[in-house]
Amino acid sequence: MAEKFDFLQTKEVKDFNQELEKYDLGPLWEAIPELMHHRPKPQAEAYLWKGEVLQKKLMEAANIFTPERGGERRAIYLQNPGLKYRQPWGWASTTQTLYAAVQLLLPGEKAPSHRHWQNAQRFVTHGEGAYTIVQGQRIFMKEGSFLITPGGLWHGHEHVGDKPMIWMDILDIPMVYSIGGTFFDHYPDLLEQPSLPDDFGSQRYEGGVVRPISDRHSHIAPVGCYRWEGTLAAIEGLSRFEPDPYDGYAVEYYNPSNGETANPTMATWMQKLPKGFHTKAHRHTHAVIYNVFKGSGYSVIDGVKFEWTEGDYFVIPNWALHEHVAYEDTFLFSTSDLPIMEKFNLERSEALDTGNGRQEIKSEFKPKTL
Amino acid sequence: MAEKFDFLQTKEVKDFNQELEKYDLGPLWEAIPELMHHRPKPQAEAYLWKGEVLQKKLMEAANIFTPERGGERRAIYLQNPGLKYRQPWGWASTTQTLYAAVQLLLPGEKAPSHRHWQNAQRFVTHGEGAYTIVQGQRIFMKEGSFLITPGGLWHGHEHVGDKPMIWMDILDIPMVYSIGGTFFDHYPDLLEQPSLPDDFGSQRYEGGVVRPISDRHSHIAPVGCYRWEGTLAAIEGLSRFEPDPYDGYAVEYYNPSNGETANPTMATWMQKLPKGFHTKAHRHTHAVIYNVFKGSGYSVIDGVKFEWTEGDYFVIPNWALHEHVAYEDTFLFSTSDLPIMEKFNLERSEALDTGNGRQEIKSEFKPKTL
Amino acid sequence: MAEKFDFLQTKEVKDFNQELEKYDLGPLWEAIPELMHHRPKPQAEAYLWKGEVLQKKLMEAANIFTPERGGERRAIYLQNPGLKYRQPWGWASTTQTLYAAVQLLLPGEKAPSHRHWQNAQRFVTHGEGAYTIVQGQRIFMKEGSFLITPGGLWHGHEHVGDKPMIWMDILDIPMVYSIGGTFFDHYPDLLEQPSLPDDFGSQRYEGGVVRPISDRHSHIAPVGCYRWEGTLAAIEGLSRFEPDPYDGYAVEYYNPSNGETANPTMATWMQKLPKGFHTKAHRHTHAVIYNVFKGSGYSVIDGVKFEWTEGDYFVIPNWALHEHVAYEDTFLFSTSDLPIMEKFNLERSEALDTGNGRQEIKSEFKPKTL
Amino acid sequence: MAEKFDFLQTKEVKDFNQELEKYDLGPLWEAIPELMHHRPKPQAEAYLWKGEVLQKKLMEAANIFTPERGGERRAIYLQNPGLKYRQPWGWASTTQTLYAAVQLLLPGEKAPSHRHWQNAQRFVTHGEGAYTIVQGQRIFMKEGSFLITPGGLWHGHEHVGDKPMIWMDILDIPMVYSIGGTFFDHYPDLLEQPSLPDDFGSQRYEGGVVRPISDRHSHIAPVGCYRWEGTLAAIEGLSRFEPDPYDGYAVEYYNPSNGETANPTMATWMQKLPKGFHTKAHRHTHAVIYNVFKGSGYSVIDGVKFEWTEGDYFVIPNWALHEHVAYEDTFLFSTSDLPIMEKFNLERSEALDTGNGRQEIKSEFKPKTL
Ligand SMILES: [Fe+2]
Ligand SMILES: [Fe+2]
Ligand SMILES: [Fe+2]
Ligand SMILES: [Fe+2]
Ligand SMILES: [Fe+2]
Ligand SMILES: [Fe+2]
Ligand SMILES: [Fe+2]
Ligand SMILES: [Fe+2]
Repeated sequence: MAEKFDFLQTKEVKDFNQELEKYDLGPLWEAIPELMHHRPKPQAEAYLWKGEVLQKKLMEAANIFTPERGGERRAIYLQNPGLKYRQPWGWASTTQTLYAAVQLLLPGEKAPSHRHWQNAQRFVTHGEGAYTIVQGQRIFMKEGSFLITPGGLWHGHEHVGDKPMIWMDILDIPMVYSIGGTFFDHYPDLLEQPSLPDDFGSQRYEGGVVRPISDRHSHIAPVGCYRWEGTLAAIEGLSRFEPDPYDGYAVEYYNPSNGETANPTMATWMQKLPKGFHTKAHRHTHAVIYNVFKGSGYSVIDGVKFEWTEGDYFVIPNWALHEHVAYEDTFLFSTSDLPIMEKFNLERSEALDTGNGRQEIKSEFKPKTL
Repeated sequence: MAEKFDFLQTKEVKDFNQELEKYDLGPLWEAIPELMHHRPKPQAEAYLWKGEVLQKKLMEAANIFTPERGGERRAIYLQNPGLKYRQPWGWASTTQTLYAAVQLLLPGEKAPSHRHWQNAQRFVTHGEGAYTIVQGQRIFMKEGSFLITPGGLWHGHEHVGDKPMIWMDILDIPMVYSIGGTFFDHYPDLLEQPSLPDDFGSQRYEGGVVRPISDRHSHIAPVGCYRWEGTLAAIEGLSRFEPDPYDGYAVEYYNPSNGETANPTMATWMQKLPKGFHTKAHRHTHAVIYNVFKGSGYSVIDGVKFEWTEGDYFVIPNWALHEHVAYEDTFLFSTSDLPIMEKFNLERSEALDTGNGRQEIKSEFKPKTL
Repeated sequence: MAEKFDFLQTKEVKDFNQELEKYDLGPLWEAIPELMHHRPKPQAEAYLWKGEVLQKKLMEAANIFTPERGGERRAIYLQNPGLKYRQPWGWASTTQTLYAAVQLLLPGEKAPSHRHWQNAQRFVTHGEGAYTIVQGQRIFMKEGSFLITPGGLWHGHEHVGDKPMIWMDILDIPMVYSIGGTFFDHYPDLLEQPSLPDDFGSQRYEGGVVRPISDRHSHIAPVGCYRWEGTLAAIEGLSRFEPDPYDGYAVEYYNPSNGETANPTMATWMQKLPKGFHTKAHRHTHAVIYNVFKGSGYSVIDGVKFEWTEGDYFVIPNWALHEHVAYEDTFLFSTSDLPIMEKFNLERSEALDTGNGRQEIKSEFKPKTL
Repeated sequence: MAEKFDFLQTKEVKDFNQELEKYDLGPLWEAIPELMHHRPKPQAEAYLWKGEVLQKKLMEAANIFTPERGGERRAIYLQNPGLKYRQPWGWASTTQTLYAAVQLLLPGEKAPSHRHWQNAQRFVTHGEGAYTIVQGQRIFMKEGSFLITPGGLWHGHEHVGDKPMIWMDILDIPMVYSIGGTFFDHYPDLLEQPSLPDDFGSQRYEGGVVRPISDRHSHIAPVGCYRWEGTLAAIEGLSRFEPDPYDGYAVEYYNPSNGETANPTMATWMQKLPKGFHTKAHRHTHAVIYNVFKGSGYSVIDGVKFEWTEGDYFVIPNWALHEHVAYEDTFLFSTSDLPIMEKFNLERSEALDTGNGRQEIKSEFKPKTL
């Protein structure tokens, strides 16, 4: 039933379709071929946003949205052009399921505490000295920190340092909006006050593959912040051996109390591509949002070349063939909806088996620039 | 951040929002208040379709779509008016996540075998004598049969009986379309040929709470068809005791090999409301699609009265307060997305604690009629 | 390390072994070869107890142990001769892990309520009219009933009928004694009083593969009693198809709320062997205790023939090759420690691949008779 | 039924008991009170072995058991006196379920590769330079290394360094012997040859709470060796905060691919008790085997004082009240059967709520000395 038949173009059929619509009914023969594709055909497109555009727009926003004027979070999200048709506001979709944004917090500013059942996480790309307070624990951020606030946890921010801070936010907003289960509460006060030691979670995990005995049963966010030093050391250890042909030297942030991904609906990875490394091409059901944390290079996505430099953001949609090339030692931070695909038994992958596993480049993507 | 501030209405802000859009960026301050509600605000509406409309339109469709003219499945889906804005084809959405349709198969007709990763199920409301062939097993259908074809199983239909058959189909099409992971394959031949005994699954489960020893480890669809006789006997046993205040005498179809719901993404229930029974009102995150299998009565959904008679279909959206009243002994068949909510830790419920747990009726729904 | 070397027979070694013992130390070189066998070598033996011996001894016990004289349960357990060396009381071991006994309750007698963390279950072989009261629910027993009282549930018995009742008890006493985790409490009163409807659990499960909606999440013992009628109907349905080559038409009692075995540490099966059926031989890590509920025939266990008639009990130890032959339509009730093996990843099985899958009979077992 | 009644002392009863024994039957009225205790009453005793005894005996064993004379592993196990009655060889029981031994490997010696379904692990207390080869991966050992070889993995040892090495072995031998499921195979060659990089597992886990992406799904032993440096760093991080009242600063070795304990049946901990620290007393169902890795102090176990110094080994049996006191900064390595208790829902614990949570010392244990 995944194709349309010629007969469906006749006036008889079209008239009948319109008749159905009057009764709030729909014709399977029209809809199913467009909704049940033979292979995943996301509406999300492969896309790339330049880091300097984001930085410039955030700085402009800083002039408009000041604490006095009421903005709670000064963030600009990455709107996938293919998903603008989702109304309202494109469901703030960067991929089919995930939202990504870039947030600016200036010295002295506060972002009030709240909680929601969307899972949230942050990756710090610039600055240091601000903290997030999550369930009474202040977590100080700096470049390379990865922070999680799974659904239901109170969280707010304050910048007690002296230079602007920029981080990336990723949430499962579109997915939760799509299924219809959102809850949101403001904290009674502006900012929750500390009730735990600062950086409690990450300090409890400074060593080997051991966990405090109180973390031996599954619970959310035993580690609230995964520090760059540890992530880098892990990648360096891994780099003594053979790289993964598709992802180089890649690690996943996980929850030590249950072995699941750090955040339940998102898989978050840091990967190193050494200078000159050229991955093989493959595709998979899950879609990925990247930040070029360090380095430069390009990706080929379904035959289109996407050049990227430090600070850029890009998206690989579901089932798009992709490969990466690094011009210099490169670190890519990424978040995908792999756990969502796995929960629904929808994860599939496929390697390109022609051209030595590399795609032919057919065109080049032109990102919007200032 | 779930409210908009006055300042956001200024020209300065609106200009900036437009500036962002040029770069395929979006303003968090606009989008989040509309996407992250304080409590679930689905776009799906409470709605009711009359059974006679569906039957009439199916019969008309039978004149247009004949096997010679290529329609693979002659089905008309229930399009929730609140979700028509989802393009294309309203994503065939009856609720935020689920598709429901009514299908007609005439004596002698065949619906070709195919498979897809959407989970599908059927509830037979009229007729008998057709079979579905699922992974080589012919399953004969009659009124009250509940059949499942979880994602990935080959399935096709043939009507070898002599009267029209009508059944309800429910699939997780909108959810899979939303996350972007659809796969679909045609069977090499028109219809798969039998390789297992007819009705193998249901014949292996004719007795008590025991399972064939080969079903002691988790696998999909050990029972392909849940017969009406067994469901009715179960409800009758249950009816000797106190009813559930919100659902009367209600049972769930389940998978005996793992104790999960029969179909992984859908919870499917049959419930009896004895004559005169008036449930208490509650609401929950999951949304429900109902078929009035037998009986008549009404539901009050967020203060609106929905009268229903045998053969009607109606929807209770996420988080809508609802209660049911039966004019006569009534059997309601229903499917919800409860397992989806549970997988994402989004299931919540709340009882109405005023007015003795009953709502005040503020208006009455007028269904579309012929 | 699983063999002993000649050198170990020298005086030098023997002296050293004795020297170690003084310090409460042990010589790996001696112990490991006897404790870590190449293949499972249980101390439990294949064994058979005649039903008439049990009945006679129970009747004699009835003259000695009367309610006035203090016996709480009048039960005689099946002591595996190979496990008598386990002290005290052979750990009441019928197999390495399980205890089986036969219990007699006379009209008017009561067995006081208590609870323990050993999992217990009962299979009724003679009589009717007594009830067990489990967590406030009276469960009436008759021939063929299978009842469970998983660890931690209060349970007591009373016989309100007029003929003697005999049932088989199976508990995981030896395993819990071995690991050292037993808890036991007396109920404050002699017998718990009813707080739920009689036979509540089994009445809620009289129909098909559906469950009351309140049982959709995992909990213990939603069904307290599995009635013979349902078990028989299930086996009859199954009997329309090909039998399992090793077990004929066999079903397992399970927990409908989670798809696990009815009792967490024991797998309990009822199997039908039609007249003349001769199974193929295989062996597996788990050990099995059988009751010949109806019929007669024999089993060949590691080359030894064990003839059995209705009412007999026999044991197949871990890893013993076994096959069954039925002289007439036969129903075998059995309990094994399969879930224990599975929890420890120790379940293995192997089919006999010589002699057309049948063993050569080398000798015949002579059971003790009156 | 957990007590014996006076009537049971009569000749009538005793005669009947003997009569039963003739038929390989057993009297519930005798056995159950001794097997189903009100609270756990293990046969294992609290006990302590001096490190110097073990070292001396191992050195003596080195003169007797040389590679030419055939000993595969030169290990002496800790035989709990309370479990000597288990025949043969006390089942090599240090606790009800676990075996612990101390092993000596001299420079140039080899211990042949083999595999078994008992789970094994090692903790290195003296020396360095030997390696274990596990499934083709050479893992080099030094003081403080914790190594695992879960059931089914090939493993052998070779000492390529120049000083004697001593380590502690812990296996679940008694439990597997008790339930009856042991399998053991010799490797075809003396020692398996390397097929993976040396220390592959631990090098892949040198950083933070991240894992190589190939370890995102559950598998056994992704980390084969947990190095002392990482364990120590973790404990130091933890030491900035409040200690656990019962265990000080304690961490558990875990499997990063699934969040379970490193070895499926054993929980293994390293705990630091700072100088002068005195824990509160509690008891729990699981039993614990300790090695005093560094430091000195004493434990009070059921009112008996056990003094310990570096290198000693001691046992806390199931449900024994215990507390620890450190004379100096102390590191205790321990292994318990907590996962076994959890698998059977038998884990319970209880704090001492009198005497400010500390026991009165009633006597002092005298260990055997040279
Ligand atoms: Fe937030
Ligand atoms: Fe990829
Ligand atoms: Fe289909
Ligand atoms: Fe409801
Ligand atoms: Fe009992
Ligand atoms: Fe068997
Ligand atoms: Fe070994
Ligand atoms: Fe303890």
